[in-house]
Amino acid sequence: MGKGRLEAFSDGVLAIIITIMVLELKVPHGSDLAALLPLWPVFLSYLLSFLYVGIYWNNHHHLLKAARRVNGAIMWANLHLLFWLSLIPFVTGWMGENHFGPVPTAGYGVVLLLSAAAYYVLQTAILADNGRSSPLARALGADLKGKLSPVFYLAGIALAFRWPWVAGALYALVALIWLIPDRRLEAVIDETPE
Amino acid sequence: MGKGRLEAFSDGVLAIIITIMVLELKVPHGSDLAALLPLWPVFLSYLLSFLYVGIYWNNHHHLLKAARRVNGAIMWANLHLLFWLSLIPFVTGWMGENHFGPVPTAGYGVVLLLSAAAYYVLQTAILADNGRSSPLARALGADLKGKLSPVFYLAGIALAFRWPWVAGALYALVALIWLIPDRRLEAVIDETPE
Amino acid sequence: MGKGRLEAFSDGVLAIIITIMVLELKVPHGSDLAALLPLWPVFLSYLLSFLYVGIYWNNHHHLLKAARRVNGAIMWANLHLLFWLSLIPFVTGWMGENHFGPVPTAGYGVVLLLSAAAYYVLQTAILADNGRSSPLARALGADLKGKLSPVFYLAGIALAFRWPWVAGALYALVALIWLIPDRRLEAVIDETPE
Amino acid sequence: MGKGRLEAFSDGVLAIIITIMVLELKVPHGSDLAALLPLWPVFLSYLLSFLYVGIYWNNHHHLLKAARRVNGAIMWANLHLLFWLSLIPFVTGWMGENHFGPVPTAGYGVVLLLSAAAYYVLQTAILADNGRSSPLARALGADLKGKLSPVFYLAGIALAFRWPWVAGALYALVALIWLIPDRRLEAVIDETPE
Repeated sequence: MGKGRLEAFSDGVLAIIITIMVLELKVPHGSDLAALLPLWPVFLSYLLSFLYVGIYWNNHHHLLKAARRVNGAIMWANLHLLFWLSLIPFVTGWMGENHFGPVPTAGYGVVLLLSAAAYYVLQTAILADNGRSSPLARALGADLKGKLSPVFYLAGIALAFRWPWVAGALYALVALIWLIPDRRLEAVIDETPE
Repeated sequence: MGKGRLEAFSDGVLAIIITIMVLELKVPHGSDLAALLPLWPVFLSYLLSFLYVGIYWNNHHHLLKAARRVNGAIMWANLHLLFWLSLIPFVTGWMGENHFGPVPTAGYGVVLLLSAAAYYVLQTAILADNGRSSPLARALGADLKGKLSPVFYLAGIALAFRWPWVAGALYALVALIWLIPDRRLEAVIDETPE
Repeated sequence: MGKGRLEAFSDGVLAIIITIMVLELKVPHGSDLAALLPLWPVFLSYLLSFLYVGIYWNNHHHLLKAARRVNGAIMWANLHLLFWLSLIPFVTGWMGENHFGPVPTAGYGVVLLLSAAAYYVLQTAILADNGRSSPLARALGADLKGKLSPVFYLAGIALAFRWPWVAGALYALVALIWLIPDRRLEAVIDETPE
Repeated sequence: MGKGRLEAFSDGVLAIIITIMVLELKVPHGSDLAALLPLWPVFLSYLLSFLYVGIYWNNHHHLLKAARRVNGAIMWANLHLLFWLSLIPFVTGWMGENHFGPVPTAGYGVVLLLSAAAYYVLQTAILADNGRSSPLARALGADLKGKLSPVFYLAGIALAFRWPWVAGALYALVALIWLIPDRRLEAVIDETPE
């Protein structure tokens, strides 16, 4: 019940999050290439966040497709995830405008960490409803990516205070790991009738 | 007729309302934790409003699902509700930036009260079309939550002028009451074929 | 073919137009009622534009529902309509911030006029595809509202230069006329299988 | 699988891109016609970008309709396209506010070129999945428009440094060429069952 509308609402929120971030890329006053140069940290943080929101949309899409139905717990777990993701434009702007300074870069990692935790809660709520022996449960298996990511985020947060660029590189690395399509979930879905 | 598109349009507006509120969380110029500190009232009001818009989306979703069809009265009642909800980002920003000052906190309560009234009008329009003996009518029953909320909002508006933080706590309390999923409506929907 | 996605895209654009207008309602710096007072022309113009976009969404919804299918001409006529509607937030802000001054109020009328013309073009494109003897053609009949509105807009534009508030009242009057649901189109749709 | 949600997400992002561009049309402080005058380059660049995003939406719509299904490659190719399109509001504002100055006008062309490249990648990913002998492959045929556009963009970028207005005219010309509905794709779709 109601899966369609939950997906539509989430798509709407994710589409807006991914798009309003570009508003942080303030149009420069100068008209030469030199005017664009100071924007590159903002552009880099925009690119990273675009990747992350795209990955969340992609994984959310697969996860919801595997869900049998939507109940109250899933609905609130989903809103909880959207809350943390909605803070991504804020930390993106903060990190970008401060040229990947220590505290903003750590703050970016905190929002990534809390988003990952919220995604895990949503996944757990869907698993609880589908049964531990469901195709979804089997497909997730050891869920290596899901378990490694928070470790990388925590490392990033800690390292940000001394080597913020290393933290940024760690965040980018996690994004690249997730870019590889989730074959486990895709496999399940091919078995699931639409 | 047309239920799908009414839901899609409402989802779009609610998704935008919930997301543009984050634009009020202005990126601070400083790059240390001290720069974040002055933002906490804005963050708190954002959190509260995110909860409220999420609750409205959730209830709207259940209500529309229980509706048999959409007529002109329902369409306009829905737009009327969206109008008051669209003012939430404005009063959220006003209350947050003024650190829950008396008048802004009362104003926030006024928008909550008018949104609740508009929701009641929409619910009445849908009930009028479904019949007083419909499963929806039976499910709503005494509608205790719906009747208590305006009392709390009115109390909050009155108290805001002297103890604005008490008013804020009252608004948060109503949100928590609503967070408990509406089992009455969920029960009806399980009986209703999709 | 493709009606669903044309509706979804239009719903998205209309939902964003109706919601970003509220961003023109800038959060005042003061925290007392006196700080809200200067906002009332902006609020009034927001209310008027919310009504107009709501009416366009409503009529668009009925019109598309009556359309048999979507072709290239309908698609571009639809984008053309969305272009003029997308200028409504701009003229709304201009009229509101200048307290319904002569030129901005005339400019608001010009955008209303061009939007109405674009709607007429879309309606004509859909009629051309449905046939002059279609239920839609019969339902539109003399299309009194559609023919009167541009006359009122033109009168408003002319009067705005001397009595801008009369122009504003005329625009509000047209909105009220349209608020009455379009029974002709509703009747057709009840005959049309979804 | 999942075509519906990919379309819905893309529609959302495109609807937001096309609408937030209007926020660059800043409400002027003056209330006479003279206050509007300095806005005309911004308005012109808005009109051009509205056309481009509209064309991309239209072509995207036809392309996805012809796709048999969605796989991981198509999903990421689609996000990649949305990334470059999301930069259109930025370069639109930059070009408009600098009155079609050389570097911003060249920058606008670069984003158009990269968007076209991303569209080509998406088209190739869909073709790879549909087969080189599919109706889509036959319909695209020589794909003259798709091959000419990058040439025009490159010419525009080069010319922008000396004659930026010629570059602007070239970009407008490409938009006009694309405005002619893509009869090849439309023909295929009429053969494809929805």
